[in-house]
Parts: sequence; C-alpha cells; structure tokens
Amino acid sequence: MILVEGDEIDREGRSRITGPRALHLLEVLRVRAGQKVRIGVIDGPRGVGLVRSIAGPEVELECILETTAPERPRVDLLLALPRPKVLRRLWAQLSALGIGRLILTNAEKVERPYFDTHVLRSDVYRALLIEGLQQAGDTRLPEVSIHRRLKVLIEDELDTWSDAGLRLVADPAAAAPVGEVVRTRLDPDPQARVLVAVGPEGGWNSFELDLLRAHHFHPVGLGSRTLRTDTACLALLALVHDAVSRHGGAPEETVSRRP
Amino acid sequence: MILVEGDEIDREGRSRITGPRALHLLEVLRVRAGQKVRIGVIDGPRGVGLVRSIAGPEVELECILETTAPERPRVDLLLALPRPKVLRRLWAQLSALGIGRLILTNAEKVERPYFDTHVLRSDVYRALLIEGLQQAGDTRLPEVSIHRRLKVLIEDELDTWSDAGLRLVADPAAAAPVGEVVRTRLDPDPQARVLVAVGPEGGWNSFELDLLRAHHFHPVGLGSRTLRTDTACLALLALVHDAVSRHGGAPEETVSRRP
Repeated sequence: MILVEGDEIDREGRSRITGPRALHLLEVLRVRAGQKVRIGVIDGPRGVGLVRSIAGPEVELECILETTAPERPRVDLLLALPRPKVLRRLWAQLSALGIGRLILTNAEKVERPYFDTHVLRSDVYRALLIEGLQQAGDTRLPEVSIHRRLKVLIEDELDTWSDAGLRLVADPAAAAPVGEVVRTRLDPDPQARVLVAVGPEGGWNSFELDLLRAHHFHPVGLGSRTLRTDTACLALLALVHDAVSRHGGAPEETVSRRP
Repeated sequence: MILVEGDEIDREGRSRITGPRALHLLEVLRVRAGQKVRIGVIDGPRGVGLVRSIAGPEVELECILETTAPERPRVDLLLALPRPKVLRRLWAQLSALGIGRLILTNAEKVERPYFDTHVLRSDVYRALLIEGLQQAGDTRLPEVSIHRRLKVLIEDELDTWSDAGLRLVADPAAAAPVGEVVRTRLDPDPQARVLVAVGPEGGWNSFELDLLRAHHFHPVGLGSRTLRTDTACLALLALVHDAVSRHGGAPEETVSRRP
C-alpha cells in the first residue's frame, strides 16, 4: 500500500506521486498505466488508485477512497527510551503491529545521550512509522510524545490525555500472563484501550515500578526468559492485541447489537 | 549469562574465559575476583561461576552447575529463507524467544542469492544464536538445517526427523487465531512439540500452501495486518509459546501426576 497525505489528493481525486513512493511504484511494483494500486490517506480512509499516467519519475493516480478510516489500534505503548540503534529498528515494526500512541520516557537506566539521537526527530521517525503502516495496510499514524521526567509523566500528565482503560507493565518478576490479566481486567469495559509499559534494557528500578503500580499499571509476565527491549515490545504487543481481540468486544459488533 | 562449551570446564569445575566473553565480563559486567556470575553450558545445565582470578584478558571461573539442563523449547520454526539482512537480525531474537529447531527452506518467492549469504555460515549464526541464549538465560542451542527443495523437505524428510505433534502455517487468509488452533489441536497430546511455518516476504504460492496443508499444517491467522517476515516470526512465536504454556501440560507436572 502507498500512503499519501490528505492534501496530496485534489478535489477530483487525482494524486501526483513523486519521490521514493513513485520509485517504489515504478521499480518494485512495476505499475503501468491502467493498473490499480492499494492506497491510503494518512489518518484517513484506504482506497484504490488507478494509474492514469506515468511521466518520468511521477505517477498520476485517480483515487477512489472508502468512506471511513480504519479503527485506531486499541493498544498504546509506554516505552523507556531504548538505544538509538534499537529504536531505529522499532519504529516501523511498532506501526506495523499497530499502536495508537507511543509514549517515550526517561527512566533511571536510560542513558542521557539517547535523547540526542536523530532517530527522535519527527521527520525521521515519521517516515519509518509510515513504512510500517504501508506494510501493514493501515493508515493510522501513531501519536508520539517524548518525556524527560517519568514521575511528572505518570503523576501529572498521563491521566489528562491517556484514555487507556487498562494499564499493564511488563515485569520479569510477575507471574500473571498477559492474556489472563486482559481477560479479568478488561471485563468491565471490553472496548477500553490498553496501555502497555516496557522498561529500559536494565529494567525499571523499584521506585519506578512502585510509581507505575500506584498508578494502576498491572504487572504482567512474559515467562522466564529475559528479552531484549525490541523483542519484548513486539512479543508483548502481539499478546495484547491477541488478548484484546479475544476478550474485548469489537466496537462494530457492539454497535450493531444495540437495538 | 555467559555460555561456555562443555569442554571449556575442566574436571575440577574450572573454566578460563577469554576473548569477547572475557571482555564482556570485565568491561560490561565489571566483575572482580570473589564475585559470582551466571553461567551455562551450551546444551547443558545452568549454574554459577565464582571469579577466582583475573589475569589480563582472561577470567578464571570456578563453576557450580545444576544437575539438569533446561527443557528444550517446545516450539520449532520452519521459515522460508528471508533476505540476509532480515535473517541476520533474526538469529538472536529467535533463540532468545526460544525455538528447538530452525528449518530454513527454499520457496518460489525466495531469491536464489539468499542462499549464498555468509549469515548462513554456521560459525556466523552460531555466535548470534548464543548471543540470544545468553540474553534469555537459556542454554539450548536450536538445531539448524537448510533445505533447497521445499517439496522434498515436506514430502520425504520432515516426518523422519521432526517430532512435532502439531503443525501450524501462518496464512494471511486464515481466520483461525493461533491460541484457538493450539487449544483444540493440542488436546490429544498436551505435551506435543509445535512446528510453525512462516512463508517468504511475498507469501507461499498456492502449490506450497496446498503441500503444507496436505501434510497437516493447520492454517492460522495473525489478524488483518500484513507483517514483515521478522515481525511475523516474533509475533507468532510469542503467541504459540503463550498458547502452549496455557493449554499444554508441563512435562514435570505430568510426570509427578503419574502413580
């Protein structure tokens, strides 16, 4: 799928694709005039683009879009800032697996220079997030925020803008499996969003873990194996998505069941 | 954890660690004489190593090992050979998540040059697998085999040496979630090993999918999102491990229940 910005499609539904996306269309997908490609508008609907013409490095598409945008993924991630090399790899994988929001935070075991990496520049990570969305066929760009003080984030800020009804924190010492906690805790509101917290490579310290627990993050275990941050994030997101889809009600279903 | 070969520990339990592992002990873990470090013997038991002496780049450990080796992970992976860049990243993540066996195979959409990469040299991938085991605190090195002909592998070879009682194939068209299939299919033998097949970036072709289904691979879905091979492998392994631990009986339990 090729993602475009909303203002890249004109009122007649025409879009002129240039740059890397045009190269991808021409050299990887090898499109020709008359063919159709899957397209999507960032944070908007998916659709189909008919290739009208190819002029040099520019592809003109005639777009027919669905009437509604896909649902925003129901899982958010709170992540202690990992090493730049790891973070760089993660962006596309996170948006491919599907997260609504990525909250990057400091922690005791996060090293200061990690905050200076160019991988935290919005133009850099936005391109990587879009790469993951295109892979997964999604259009919903995760919201990203970066926080230098965990205590302020958790105590003062999180409640004001996170709408997650269930909070989990990955804790190697916890025995409760993800699916179990989601099943029992999501029950009162099966459509609630879920926020998952993953610590730094060396783990949360006890103060941080107490802080999270005091603010309703339920500890969940990932078994006896210690995983690297990136592997742990992906494993955890897969498990939470699975649990939410098994135990949570899909919004559409609930709507259609109402009289 | 530091992993050593069985023959690196002498009869008195002494082991002289040199090279990258010694550097890791000295520069990352900053061990000093008298301290203890977690050690493990490849394919053998875990234990504790007491630092007896440090001489230049050599660390001498006195090792006390457990009496039994950890269980071999119950999940095996059959994977259409991915691009070298992706495969390189995968080795350590796969052994960290835990697999008993990695079966790499050709498929229509696997490009021939992928087989020529140095990442398929056993000295290269063994070091990466050990890195993942050390991270996870496991000692069981996955067995690796490389197959140039999928049809021969599936029709003639697999039954003779794969002891997996349940076979799954990731199929974007399948609706059945992993947990559901494991729960219903693992029932007759809850301790059976599980073999999971993941196709190439472009998917299995219909002949390949029919071949797998004809040889008892049950299609499982991963939701509506298309994932990159490495993300799909990690998500799938996390889900299968979780399902096996929820629905399969632990070997120890079954033994202790017998009269």
